[in-house]
Amino acid sequence: MSGSSIGNLFCVTSFGESHGAAIGCVVDGCPPGMVLSTDDIQAELDRRKPGTSRHVTQRRESDTVEILSGVFEGKTTGAPIALLIRNEDQRSKDYGNIADTFRPGHADYTYWHKYGIRDYRGGGRSSARETAVRVAAGAIARKWLLERYGVVIRGYMSQLGPIEIPFKSWDAVSENPFFAPNTEIVPELETYMDQLRKSGDSVGAKISVVAENVPVGWGEPVYDRLDADLAYALMSINAVKGVEIGAGFDSVTQKGSEHGDELTPVGFLSNHAGGVLGGISTGQDIIAHIAIKPTSSIRLPRNSIDKAGNPVLVETHGRHDPCVGIRATPIAEAMLAIVLIDHALRHRGQCADVVVDTPRIAGKVK
Amino acid sequence: MSGSSIGNLFCVTSFGESHGAAIGCVVDGCPPGMVLSTDDIQAELDRRKPGTSRHVTQRRESDTVEILSGVFEGKTTGAPIALLIRNEDQRSKDYGNIADTFRPGHADYTYWHKYGIRDYRGGGRSSARETAVRVAAGAIARKWLLERYGVVIRGYMSQLGPIEIPFKSWDAVSENPFFAPNTEIVPELETYMDQLRKSGDSVGAKISVVAENVPVGWGEPVYDRLDADLAYALMSINAVKGVEIGAGFDSVTQKGSEHGDELTPVGFLSNHAGGVLGGISTGQDIIAHIAIKPTSSIRLPRNSIDKAGNPVLVETHGRHDPCVGIRATPIAEAMLAIVLIDHALRHRGQCADVVVDTPRIAGKVK
Amino acid sequence: MSGSSIGNLFCVTSFGESHGAAIGCVVDGCPPGMVLSTDDIQAELDRRKPGTSRHVTQRRESDTVEILSGVFEGKTTGAPIALLIRNEDQRSKDYGNIADTFRPGHADYTYWHKYGIRDYRGGGRSSARETAVRVAAGAIARKWLLERYGVVIRGYMSQLGPIEIPFKSWDAVSENPFFAPNTEIVPELETYMDQLRKSGDSVGAKISVVAENVPVGWGEPVYDRLDADLAYALMSINAVKGVEIGAGFDSVTQKGSEHGDELTPVGFLSNHAGGVLGGISTGQDIIAHIAIKPTSSIRLPRNSIDKAGNPVLVETHGRHDPCVGIRATPIAEAMLAIVLIDHALRHRGQCADVVVDTPRIAGKVK
Amino acid sequence: MSGSSIGNLFCVTSFGESHGAAIGCVVDGCPPGMVLSTDDIQAELDRRKPGTSRHVTQRRESDTVEILSGVFEGKTTGAPIALLIRNEDQRSKDYGNIADTFRPGHADYTYWHKYGIRDYRGGGRSSARETAVRVAAGAIARKWLLERYGVVIRGYMSQLGPIEIPFKSWDAVSENPFFAPNTEIVPELETYMDQLRKSGDSVGAKISVVAENVPVGWGEPVYDRLDADLAYALMSINAVKGVEIGAGFDSVTQKGSEHGDELTPVGFLSNHAGGVLGGISTGQDIIAHIAIKPTSSIRLPRNSIDKAGNPVLVETHGRHDPCVGIRATPIAEAMLAIVLIDHALRHRGQCADVVVDTPRIAGKVK
Repeated sequence: MSGSSIGNLFCVTSFGESHGAAIGCVVDGCPPGMVLSTDDIQAELDRRKPGTSRHVTQRRESDTVEILSGVFEGKTTGAPIALLIRNEDQRSKDYGNIADTFRPGHADYTYWHKYGIRDYRGGGRSSARETAVRVAAGAIARKWLLERYGVVIRGYMSQLGPIEIPFKSWDAVSENPFFAPNTEIVPELETYMDQLRKSGDSVGAKISVVAENVPVGWGEPVYDRLDADLAYALMSINAVKGVEIGAGFDSVTQKGSEHGDELTPVGFLSNHAGGVLGGISTGQDIIAHIAIKPTSSIRLPRNSIDKAGNPVLVETHGRHDPCVGIRATPIAEAMLAIVLIDHALRHRGQCADVVVDTPRIAGKVK
Repeated sequence: MSGSSIGNLFCVTSFGESHGAAIGCVVDGCPPGMVLSTDDIQAELDRRKPGTSRHVTQRRESDTVEILSGVFEGKTTGAPIALLIRNEDQRSKDYGNIADTFRPGHADYTYWHKYGIRDYRGGGRSSARETAVRVAAGAIARKWLLERYGVVIRGYMSQLGPIEIPFKSWDAVSENPFFAPNTEIVPELETYMDQLRKSGDSVGAKISVVAENVPVGWGEPVYDRLDADLAYALMSINAVKGVEIGAGFDSVTQKGSEHGDELTPVGFLSNHAGGVLGGISTGQDIIAHIAIKPTSSIRLPRNSIDKAGNPVLVETHGRHDPCVGIRATPIAEAMLAIVLIDHALRHRGQCADVVVDTPRIAGKVK
Repeated sequence: MSGSSIGNLFCVTSFGESHGAAIGCVVDGCPPGMVLSTDDIQAELDRRKPGTSRHVTQRRESDTVEILSGVFEGKTTGAPIALLIRNEDQRSKDYGNIADTFRPGHADYTYWHKYGIRDYRGGGRSSARETAVRVAAGAIARKWLLERYGVVIRGYMSQLGPIEIPFKSWDAVSENPFFAPNTEIVPELETYMDQLRKSGDSVGAKISVVAENVPVGWGEPVYDRLDADLAYALMSINAVKGVEIGAGFDSVTQKGSEHGDELTPVGFLSNHAGGVLGGISTGQDIIAHIAIKPTSSIRLPRNSIDKAGNPVLVETHGRHDPCVGIRATPIAEAMLAIVLIDHALRHRGQCADVVVDTPRIAGKVK
Repeated sequence: MSGSSIGNLFCVTSFGESHGAAIGCVVDGCPPGMVLSTDDIQAELDRRKPGTSRHVTQRRESDTVEILSGVFEGKTTGAPIALLIRNEDQRSKDYGNIADTFRPGHADYTYWHKYGIRDYRGGGRSSARETAVRVAAGAIARKWLLERYGVVIRGYMSQLGPIEIPFKSWDAVSENPFFAPNTEIVPELETYMDQLRKSGDSVGAKISVVAENVPVGWGEPVYDRLDADLAYALMSINAVKGVEIGAGFDSVTQKGSEHGDELTPVGFLSNHAGGVLGGISTGQDIIAHIAIKPTSSIRLPRNSIDKAGNPVLVETHGRHDPCVGIRATPIAEAMLAIVLIDHALRHRGQCADVVVDTPRIAGKVK
């Protein structure tokens, strides 16, 4: 398939530009018989939508989703589910000035040279607006994973710029605009963001996602490993520059006697693997971390060139997130869900008959 | 396709177990008319093969490759190229004792529960031996990339356990068994490895790969981005736990005014992007880093369980690399090459007619 | 990818049910820079839409298409093109009576057993209404093929039930509601259809499609042959039960001395191959024929069973085509176009550098 | 994936040329735990191998298959199964004379123009020798289908040139070199073939394949229908020019009251559908027919051109089947098996949870 589809048996095909008529996707391969309504999807979209706090873009989009197909009398039918989100707040004039200019850190230069034409309005196809589609498709995936296998997918912001955010509780995540698992640190985050916004600059962030209750056995070595497909899915999110599974880059300095998770009759003693061994889920929590680069659109003047190759100074005064990482948590969760359901289906297809009398041990021993 | 194939137009399908009759692959989609002989492939295989220094496994494999198809009168025909490497040094008795035991950090437990059966000899399918196949296929990809587009792909070890390795020169890489781009530091690395080996433990490493002269325009957003496919390919390598593109996790603490690479008429002023913007190559160097976990097979006793679920102590006395990262550089280079050629072909297919009068600027200004 | 997508580099993903909110598709991989408007697509949709004569269903659908993405300032951008067609005339009450009954010849029984749930309204996903989507996507493919390579794709009805239709001229095809390449025979066809409609029965048909000016070299052996992919695409059309390339089943009784098309410096002397040898286009006309079964929905009573397994008599009084073949010509043309553009792109990707000094001979010598 | 792979979850990747070192394939996705030995595969290969009667090519190939991977202690492990068949009887000199000539009916001309280079020895990649690989892979598929679902796949020659072969019994098929389901007609077939061989000409044939006990529900509409994928797989066989499912082209003249298979509580009353409705298996026998063109290599002189475009006369005196259809039955069976197992796995993946209380009716009522 071409580049706008992800997944094999559960296949999501995305379309739409930031300032076009609409964005949306086709979700093909969702198992039949699952209760599904726009509410299930809208709830996830609302978690990522813009304008919910002063720390994110003020673009006004209700991100109202319409289910066009694949659901009958409230249940999925096994047919492709098409989701449509109309764009509402298209202030294209904000972007007219970039029609002939390549903004540093953006895809302007690469899209232009690849395609010879680009929809420059708000970044067009390369806009983070496309991630709303991922969240919508992910909502379907996570609902099925939860109902069918009890898989719980959650994420949080683990670092905002220089501020590391110690994990306190899952409950905290929904109680602040940063998806921080820690309420005490929120004032510090707000102060930091307010100063950052005033300075006209932007900053990066680190997001962590976890999937609990994933059965052992999901993943298709040697290339379509669960962790490899997850790396692909997470790196495909706008602005992501790094992906870690479990211990990630800490593995570099670890000894084998530390990293290798020991097994006992009652469970694993640690989870440096992040729930994946040999590309297959272990039954422990799936844990991944991503690095998100700072927003490229900033008010501070930057050197660039125009189409003619002449030097220009670029200052971006549109509506932008000073830290795109703030809204990235639901997106990362969605990609994790999409990868997991696809592998759940693939595993059932090839290994539906496998019966193992060996006891399956629990996840990490608390 | 199923899990043992990578790539779309340039598709590599891998097969083989560590102690089976042979390993190999089918490379489908290689452009026709390229001069190709076993020497081209053998040269790369020899860079990764075991037994070349005291710091790697002493298993003796000549890794002699045979081209079974797809080459006629010394040139590729466009037909699938099948590569065969017979296994030679199969001391399976080394592994008999693990038939009923799940080694910590290995895929024993997951393969068993996924498939209900596993070839336990030397890890079977999950063995790093499979990476020889990647190097062989990658040799074909890199040769074409170099001859057709002048793309140069190189890699090096950037960190061995706690020892960061400052980059000095590319020439140094081939002059030591660690692929270190720095000869002064080699004695320190050797001392460290000798002590590590004596201790019976293992350690992780960090590998960096670079592709020069990649044209602007390769990559298929929004999912099959060049960096997303690269993350998939690199994470699919045994023992890899993290992938970074360009600045990677340093992006978390960077400001937008620092990270965003400025453009000038004579080139980019920096390359934090690692040569990819919006999932498409910029014309700058493609730069990626991977984290490799410590070898799971160590002499030190580890807690585990057997198939019956009973606790056991595992000590591994077979022939193993105390640091799998030492031989990982050619593998990472190969995966980068495989991803690049696939995207080169896909880009030509969709965008062959694109003509842009805008000047293409140089890579990073020195 | 899952079952609702067709094509590799030019990938069409279809969605929608007969009586759902809408039908549509995402066309991913269309080359950038092509002028495209809804008029280009609407023109093809109007050729297949219902209610255009007394010989087809009277369901009223304007089949108005909306382009949601992938086109900017009148040109394709290389991004996915989403097409949306709202359903208008949904008289679902026509179908309430079949909710619990399996209609003979329909997919009711198979969808029910496969998915455990089905949108029975008008056949839901299995309705021929989905073919409108194929025509819309095909319109994009054929426009590009014509503009870029001069490929002309046309089709006609070659047989209606027992009446064989001798080919007279391409001009005739658009001058009658049957797509017959022969105006003299139209009165006979109309008389036959009027009697058939009165009888409450239905009948099959044979459609032929031709692509002219296809360059030599398109097709990817040994499985993704041009003719194999074409057989797949044509057989995927509702009600198609047979596919022939060139001489087709006449080849069974032919001698090699008759079938094998001889070559001369000025061209081939015949075209029994139908423009494909070894799965690759020859430069001659691509010729295919398809058999379309009679409409399954008829007024005559038929034996069947209900969900409980009880015998029932089924009489269908909804709005149906007495011969679905009558509207099948534009659909078959569209599938041919979709297969050709995909192979054009794939061929360019792998073989863009091929230069052959051997003269390319003309198609069939007149 | 590229053109040499078929199937999604059960994926076969083929390689090899007629006169290269070897032919073979990688079978990826075979479910684990199935007993498999070379005997299982060899038995099928022997059914299609050359030199078994005077009516087929006298090329001597033992077609001895080696299993290189994916089988451990006599059982499949779920890992890719690589199969290798060394070429033995490569009398390339037979073919030297065609290095610069394009043989009518062969792929010489198309391969040359597509790739700019071709392995002309015995047709190279386009040789029917590649079909041995299909039979080998198909042997694995059919064994699993039989053991897991009781699916029985059989085929026969239904027509040899002008001679239609009435079906008498399955037992007869293995008792004659033509795979004719009718022993009485064998003398007529032999006489016809002897005369044909003397004449230096060749002829076409028609092959029919049947799969019994296929459960209802296999097939992935709207494109990856069971019949569409079957059409693709069968048309991809060398020399096939037509594919029919069930009534096939007879559907053209049938009335709906005749074609539509009625249902009763005890089963269907007919099977014009050929076991597929809406692209999904009905539980009836899957029935397909293919048209095979006459062998292109004949002794009679034929007009052609050489690479320089000059007219030449071609007479082929190598070792060839006067009717390639004679050995095609095992190949068609294999392709049917490969398509069925892939859809079995895909269906299990998406619909494993479907439970339908509606009774499944029997196949065709005798």
